[in-house]
Amino acid sequence: MGDPKGIGPEVVAKAICDPAIARQARFVVYGQNQLLVDAAERAGLRPLWFRVAKEGLVNQRGLAAEPVVIDYGHEDALPREHAPSRAGGLLSKAFVEDAITDALRPVGDLRRVDAVVTGPIAKESWSMAGFRWPGHTELFAARCKCLHHAMLFESPRLRVALATAHVPLMDIRNVLTIGKVFDPIDLGAAHCRRLGIERPRVAVCGLNPHAGENGLFGDEERRIIAPAIEMARNAGIDAHGPFPGDTVFIDAAAGKWDLVVAMYHDQGLIPVKLLGFDRAVNVTVGLNIVRTSPDHGTAFGIASRHVASPNSMKAAIELAVKLARQPEPRDERPRGPRGDALAADRAPDAGDTASDG
Amino acid sequence: MGDPKGIGPEVVAKAICDPAIARQARFVVYGQNQLLVDAAERAGLRPLWFRVAKEGLVNQRGLAAEPVVIDYGHEDALPREHAPSRAGGLLSKAFVEDAITDALRPVGDLRRVDAVVTGPIAKESWSMAGFRWPGHTELFAARCKCLHHAMLFESPRLRVALATAHVPLMDIRNVLTIGKVFDPIDLGAAHCRRLGIERPRVAVCGLNPHAGENGLFGDEERRIIAPAIEMARNAGIDAHGPFPGDTVFIDAAAGKWDLVVAMYHDQGLIPVKLLGFDRAVNVTVGLNIVRTSPDHGTAFGIASRHVASPNSMKAAIELAVKLARQPEPRDERPRGPRGDALAADRAPDAGDTASDG
Repeated sequence: MGDPKGIGPEVVAKAICDPAIARQARFVVYGQNQLLVDAAERAGLRPLWFRVAKEGLVNQRGLAAEPVVIDYGHEDALPREHAPSRAGGLLSKAFVEDAITDALRPVGDLRRVDAVVTGPIAKESWSMAGFRWPGHTELFAARCKCLHHAMLFESPRLRVALATAHVPLMDIRNVLTIGKVFDPIDLGAAHCRRLGIERPRVAVCGLNPHAGENGLFGDEERRIIAPAIEMARNAGIDAHGPFPGDTVFIDAAAGKWDLVVAMYHDQGLIPVKLLGFDRAVNVTVGLNIVRTSPDHGTAFGIASRHVASPNSMKAAIELAVKLARQPEPRDERPRGPRGDALAADRAPDAGDTASDG
Repeated sequence: MGDPKGIGPEVVAKAICDPAIARQARFVVYGQNQLLVDAAERAGLRPLWFRVAKEGLVNQRGLAAEPVVIDYGHEDALPREHAPSRAGGLLSKAFVEDAITDALRPVGDLRRVDAVVTGPIAKESWSMAGFRWPGHTELFAARCKCLHHAMLFESPRLRVALATAHVPLMDIRNVLTIGKVFDPIDLGAAHCRRLGIERPRVAVCGLNPHAGENGLFGDEERRIIAPAIEMARNAGIDAHGPFPGDTVFIDAAAGKWDLVVAMYHDQGLIPVKLLGFDRAVNVTVGLNIVRTSPDHGTAFGIASRHVASPNSMKAAIELAVKLARQPEPRDERPRGPRGDALAADRAPDAGDTASDG
């Protein structure tokens, strides 16, 4: 459900009350029933779901045909205003931790879920509650024990993966490595194959203006990005670049590329949000569970007005369902010596994910 | 005309042969007649202009009613292939130097021009010819003796000015100062007023993801960008921010802002090019002459095929004409003590420009 005081409850309620969404899967909402009921009623929707108390019997969940809301209660602990809060941080962290736990359960466990869609959280709420995670993505990676993962955005006209995300721009010099550029190429290409694109065409951005213009403005293209592209090509991926950031997205939006790998947050998110309107979805690739998210934040400023669009949440749900239905593809790419060496270099628990999708 | 082996000759010939463009001004092309004639003929256009040899009589120019081509000849010095070359560097540098010289002449001089539109040059050609300018913009600023200047892009849905341009991304830490952020706000707002926007609404981007999220990812917003916005507001400019780069352009494209100030090249150019199609124009603001340019490069790869679109060149010409017709507006904004101090701090030759637009 995300932060209780953000637009999470509203977009979740609107999404699961949409018959076109409701018929696609059986939903379990980790959240607070009263907020969800309020949001549905203010939107003129009937809250047709089955409430199960957080401490209720596990098999109640398995029996329900309708959407299930696991109710954490404690609405009275929340502040009146729509703003970050300690209670909001504690609750939204509990929602997502429990969802991850359930997603990691073995098939057959009544509590298992096949995919997780996260509502927007407020990092400030988490911080007030004592949690220092930079975002959902890093928490998922840690809980899934996946060393290699990346943020990827699906929007109607662009698919973009990031080499770095929530770091100060000037700290990129300290975190951008060949591996950091290789991972989103590799994991993003595997994600494309899972969606049915047999041989994804991948464009990789440069870091500097004009992709460095042959070393005139910076050398990261030569030192880091070109070697990562070479490594990906040796691993059988149809990767190209580095291309100037200001033109590659034009080609991608025109259909020339299945995936663009951006070097940092704004380079990738500016085009995704500009062309994606309210339909962009954030996917964490490289995990051993399916995790998607709408690409908007808590939007505290409009949370009391009940005017939020559920479109990005709906798109996130639809993508999660689609990914959960696809088996993780067998990796049958030819592997050169460098590709093999790289796979062997990985932590055992991340290796399966990194090479299988 | 720009680099002789790029698409410059082609887009110039196509633009000045368009009757809708030709009637807007009297054109002087600094270039090579034979290349322009070839380009026009391959496009099925009649090269109806008046050729004057570079070393010809000055008053021949003043008498011609049609477009005038000042012919630098030396086509035989150019390489056969469409690629950077020393000859291309020497020639394209001479074209633009002479155009700047003529733009700086006093009103009444037969050789004076009221605005300069630059064709695309190849930095590599300039480098082969021994010239180390990072780009046209810096050359114009030096020749015009303007310390304070900025790159600004006009496109149908966005107007974006840059705080930094052709620097390695990781070097921004060394060049981004309060003044570097203030200049594009100040000069960009003056440019808006010259175009008739009485009280331009200016949005300023952050540098970091989510504009730093209250210091969580970097402190440049607090140390540099917010003080520059404050300084601009004290100078009477309706400036706001810093805003996250990945959402501010959505608002700007929807009409909320007259100008967005981006911190670096790709942050500003990705949205301009993505929404601008082939209609974006580069303007140097802060000069004491009018200078515009199409936003594309030499495009050597397509230069032999004669398929280049002249739309950006036409848009650059139209904007130059519009700016040349507008008087530089008197600066009648209220000035606070910090604004005054700033103006006094400027070099005398740049001060007029910086405060008058």
